[in-house]
Amino acid sequence: MIIPTEMRALLLTGEGYAAAPSGGELEAMEPYVSLDSISVPEPGPKQVLVKVRLASINPSDVMFVKGLYGQPRVKGQPAGFEGVGEVVAAGGEPQAQALVGKRVAFATGVSNWGSWAEYAIAEAGACIPLIDTVRDEDGAAMIVNPLTALAMFGIVKDEGEKAFVMTAGASQLCKLIIGLASEAGFRPIVTVRRDEQIAPLKGLGAAHVLNEKSPEFGQALREVLKTEQPRILLDAVTGPVASTIFHLMPRGARWIVYGRLDTGTTAIKEPGQLIFQQKVVEGFWLPMWMRKSTERREAAVMEAQRRFSDGRWATDVTATVPLGEAMTRVPKELAKPNGKVFIKP
Amino acid sequence: MIIPTEMRALLLTGEGYAAAPSGGELEAMEPYVSLDSISVPEPGPKQVLVKVRLASINPSDVMFVKGLYGQPRVKGQPAGFEGVGEVVAAGGEPQAQALVGKRVAFATGVSNWGSWAEYAIAEAGACIPLIDTVRDEDGAAMIVNPLTALAMFGIVKDEGEKAFVMTAGASQLCKLIIGLASEAGFRPIVTVRRDEQIAPLKGLGAAHVLNEKSPEFGQALREVLKTEQPRILLDAVTGPVASTIFHLMPRGARWIVYGRLDTGTTAIKEPGQLIFQQKVVEGFWLPMWMRKSTERREAAVMEAQRRFSDGRWATDVTATVPLGEAMTRVPKELAKPNGKVFIKP
Repeated sequence: MIIPTEMRALLLTGEGYAAAPSGGELEAMEPYVSLDSISVPEPGPKQVLVKVRLASINPSDVMFVKGLYGQPRVKGQPAGFEGVGEVVAAGGEPQAQALVGKRVAFATGVSNWGSWAEYAIAEAGACIPLIDTVRDEDGAAMIVNPLTALAMFGIVKDEGEKAFVMTAGASQLCKLIIGLASEAGFRPIVTVRRDEQIAPLKGLGAAHVLNEKSPEFGQALREVLKTEQPRILLDAVTGPVASTIFHLMPRGARWIVYGRLDTGTTAIKEPGQLIFQQKVVEGFWLPMWMRKSTERREAAVMEAQRRFSDGRWATDVTATVPLGEAMTRVPKELAKPNGKVFIKP
Repeated sequence: MIIPTEMRALLLTGEGYAAAPSGGELEAMEPYVSLDSISVPEPGPKQVLVKVRLASINPSDVMFVKGLYGQPRVKGQPAGFEGVGEVVAAGGEPQAQALVGKRVAFATGVSNWGSWAEYAIAEAGACIPLIDTVRDEDGAAMIVNPLTALAMFGIVKDEGEKAFVMTAGASQLCKLIIGLASEAGFRPIVTVRRDEQIAPLKGLGAAHVLNEKSPEFGQALREVLKTEQPRILLDAVTGPVASTIFHLMPRGARWIVYGRLDTGTTAIKEPGQLIFQQKVVEGFWLPMWMRKSTERREAAVMEAQRRFSDGRWATDVTATVPLGEAMTRVPKELAKPNGKVFIKP
């Protein structure tokens, strides 16, 4: 295997954090990344060099390149938190060496050498060697969404109430959770923004799918929450719609924010509910959840692999965009609903 | 002891909850209570009849008569959650009988026969027999504020960070907490709305007193929070000022709402902080705190009595208003800063 000294990658143009908040949509690539050449990185002792087959684009990547994610940008480094590829080199530690030649799902969080590139660096501990029955598309989206889905559905199960609410219900993440919930006899109530998303999500097992753009949304929401009495809101959106949902939820409701696609005001409409109804507003972040328990993390990794291998889970693909076309095509593809967009180096 | 059949009391004119939110100020009595005659109630088996000496007016009473508190109003019943008086009759249960003839601090939460009356009903378990060294003014304000102060300062101690923030810093409740904190080497940062409140609160032990009406407030707040790194905000106010404080607090901050004097929008300015900085918004309500542990409650009751008996605590009195003058005088007296207003039947 000959490893070149130079590679193409989508490099961050911004440094640190954005000065002002903005929405979760990627209106164009140019303000945030540029396609350019950079030296192929060398793995540290516990790291591996991955020849990327497919790189994922998650909502967290979009927030990150815009400077809105919880980690600062380093200008000139490749973006991309997740992908699938072959380990072509490794540092000296046995755990890294053991991965050479293997196809792995990987996350790049700590390394600062992202997956939107021909080669990426990952910690050996952030790699999952894949069995042959897992497709590249599933491997490339194995970590961020599946582990978040398992972790957040775990919170729902611990709370005990069968019904729960999710915003941005047509996202890949929510689809995974709907599947988990439906299997376990739980009742997901999800909000979407298009009528055509209703039937597929009901087919996956959502108990209620409400279109927040419908004129009947307010009334339907009120009735569903009254009947189902959900206590958990898993919220990727924030803003006025999430505020209203939380306001209408019953005593003891927990508003768990994991994304903020809507930059509108996120208000607690009746703060008295925090006092007299013991409602709480909190957040969820996968790296924090993983840090809290290695056991829990390992169990989730195993569970995710089993589900992709036996076909219970499959990643919906909107588009696989060649790296050379990413600058022009990615924003358009991301704007389409329902599926995942990959970058293929 | 001859107990009359009729008594005078301030009776609730509203039923249930208010249709719309309003502020924590009592602009007038007439919309909410009327001074009238009503039959003297009879205590149930576990209850006592108290001849009221002094009745407290707490912020929670104001919220309650306005229909904004977490319990529905019953039209025609006396208002008032707290007071001091003599037990003049009791139900058949030994715990109630044991209180006859004693001077007690009492809370009326469950009974619906409030303290703004010549006679009140309290559960025997919600009475604290007072030793002679406790003044009536302290006995009348023994439960709501002192136990809340001990409970909320307990939360601060459990969190471990020496610095913490309180809004409405000149309230009786905050003064009690400042005293507790100062004794224990903690550093309260409090906000007020008048410059003349700054020196007295510093005298009590506040590390920083910031006037939210000052043009330098924003800058001062930013600097103090940066230096002190407080993780708990005990908030009686909500609205834009509390939103700003929470926004500027560091990683892991907990915004604990126990009142909502400001009806302005209560926004989470940067929901990403919930995700990446593990910030949380929650509430505190004394009855819920007490329900969770009897031991904790008993310890706090003992501690409060000791502090009032040995003079470490003393209630500041703004006015003691005769029941017959309450309709006209109470709103004016409540509008004055710093002290407590009592009703004397």
